[in-house]
Amino acid sequence: MANAAFRWMMTGLGQPIALAQFDPFPPASGEVVVEIAGCGVCHTDLGYYYDGVRTKHDLPLTLGHEISGRVVETGADAAYWADRAVIVPAVIPCGTCDACRRGKSTICPNQKMPGNDIHGGFATHIVVPAHGLCEVDETKLKAIGADLADLSVIADAVTTPYQAVIQAGVRPGDLVIVNGVGGVGGYAVQIAHALGGTVVAIDVNEAKLAKIAENGAALTLDARALPGRELKAAIQTFAKERGLRKTEWIIFECSGTRAGQETAFSLINHGATLCVVGFTMDKVEVRLSNLMAYHARALGNWGCSPELYPAALDLVLAGRVKVAPFVEKHPLDQINQIFAAVHHGELKRRAVLVPVH
Amino acid sequence: MANAAFRWMMTGLGQPIALAQFDPFPPASGEVVVEIAGCGVCHTDLGYYYDGVRTKHDLPLTLGHEISGRVVETGADAAYWADRAVIVPAVIPCGTCDACRRGKSTICPNQKMPGNDIHGGFATHIVVPAHGLCEVDETKLKAIGADLADLSVIADAVTTPYQAVIQAGVRPGDLVIVNGVGGVGGYAVQIAHALGGTVVAIDVNEAKLAKIAENGAALTLDARALPGRELKAAIQTFAKERGLRKTEWIIFECSGTRAGQETAFSLINHGATLCVVGFTMDKVEVRLSNLMAYHARALGNWGCSPELYPAALDLVLAGRVKVAPFVEKHPLDQINQIFAAVHHGELKRRAVLVPVH
Repeated sequence: MANAAFRWMMTGLGQPIALAQFDPFPPASGEVVVEIAGCGVCHTDLGYYYDGVRTKHDLPLTLGHEISGRVVETGADAAYWADRAVIVPAVIPCGTCDACRRGKSTICPNQKMPGNDIHGGFATHIVVPAHGLCEVDETKLKAIGADLADLSVIADAVTTPYQAVIQAGVRPGDLVIVNGVGGVGGYAVQIAHALGGTVVAIDVNEAKLAKIAENGAALTLDARALPGRELKAAIQTFAKERGLRKTEWIIFECSGTRAGQETAFSLINHGATLCVVGFTMDKVEVRLSNLMAYHARALGNWGCSPELYPAALDLVLAGRVKVAPFVEKHPLDQINQIFAAVHHGELKRRAVLVPVH
Repeated sequence: MANAAFRWMMTGLGQPIALAQFDPFPPASGEVVVEIAGCGVCHTDLGYYYDGVRTKHDLPLTLGHEISGRVVETGADAAYWADRAVIVPAVIPCGTCDACRRGKSTICPNQKMPGNDIHGGFATHIVVPAHGLCEVDETKLKAIGADLADLSVIADAVTTPYQAVIQAGVRPGDLVIVNGVGGVGGYAVQIAHALGGTVVAIDVNEAKLAKIAENGAALTLDARALPGRELKAAIQTFAKERGLRKTEWIIFECSGTRAGQETAFSLINHGATLCVVGFTMDKVEVRLSNLMAYHARALGNWGCSPELYPAALDLVLAGRVKVAPFVEKHPLDQINQIFAAVHHGELKRRAVLVPVH
């Protein structure tokens, strides 16, 4: 049964995720079958499963959009990919529409997100378009002591902040602030640091702050201990000590909470860039006019263009962004327990579910 | 007394603005004395005078930052400007600091705004740095049937939205929305139209909408008649009819009101750009995460870099942006009555106060 394929299906809000067999073979033209190495558990998955955020594909649906694996069968026009190790983009643009042709693939109206538009990565196999796949050099992978499953999180947790950092234009000498240094924000810190930024990490969790202090953050601040204007004042003091600018801070909001977004907005200074990376359904109350008064900007970004994946992967394969210390692998068949554990904040690292082949 | 100089001083919140003589001569090195042709009355002036917004310079202070005139005396190093017709930038950067040298003059910490940092334009004369002055070709000016006083509004009402339009990158084929088509928004419509955008104008004032329909707006919408999602739906229908994109709208918020900002934010779609041009002290309640979900952005801009003034002036001198139909000139010595009339919304055009020389 080496080729038997299984996937875990969400059938309803909070209902037990159920195993189902399926047949991914043969892939259609332009598609490939990927034997999954690992699939990361993202808060977006929990949003669908616990909070009632609607998936675009009707239930039952296999969740999971942080996928790495190996191509085991190729459809017509996809022969190049045979037997290659790959990362599947969390958002797969069509590559042919007007938006894609104008280089705006993140707003492609035909984009497919595994675990939302199509069956996702909590499975042994997945069928995806070959377009946008990111090839992994396994010799380099071995050299950094990671395995292919570790790289699954590149598909969202690493590339989404990577695109935000590129879009914001982080350069050496910049003062960068990351609010919320969990599964996504931790990579925002590492990436901004790798590109030359001096990074201030903010969170409400001491353990996360302690860990990120060893992985790129030059200063860590507990938001609970610095109410109101004290947070901004602490960063101003730090900037002065380090000889960094008191203007043009680049702020990454990665907590995806109302309080976090309001905190991040309050840190806007002259010429600042606020990058909205985390998502919450909640509205926030902010003085939008500050963007005008400070000549500042707020940038959102959805997923990451596949064209940026190779550069993000390069940072990981060069050892400049570490993935392995931030993930913990669990067998895929424990998916129900792991979802519950993540939901209850019991895990310290991002969970990657690994199928048995 | 051809050279006697007078200015009108704000002495306190809502107190009668009082005439005072002063001596602007001789200007210091790098400075010039401008004999003022006209100075526009901006809502920012009313904010200082009626709402208690603090000026940076202590009272008494001469307000007014939309200034055109003629250089009548030059200090050392400013001889070039002798006898030239000029527009004085509303925000004058120092030109030598770190921010200025990096091309970020709008966040220059040493910038001078007439009527805020230094005595302003409700006067017969003003002393300003020569740096940043915008020269006016009076032959071209005569050809469009305008006079130098008409051009005063270029210093803020025209150039501020001009910088916003340039920053947003409006190009032919773009669907542009301008919310609030008063003193500033009316120029946003004209400028975006001149650069090839198809412009939808939104306001709550039928007269303003009727006027802008004759000056660049392809569609006018009364926000009061289109509650909730109906406004966005109406623009979507228009886009479809015109064969314009249903994504990447470029929205200019020029009302400077809480309701207007919330309306403008609600129009964000995939790849949209929201330009925050108007100012209000009020906070707004918005779902900031929509910037992320739609891969959209919100851009603020403060004033306008002097380097952009010549191009904005060119649009006016080429007749592509009309100024004269949108201003009404009044004698400077009626300043108290005109402030009151603007405050009570009694004027249909932007008031320009003209001194007698």
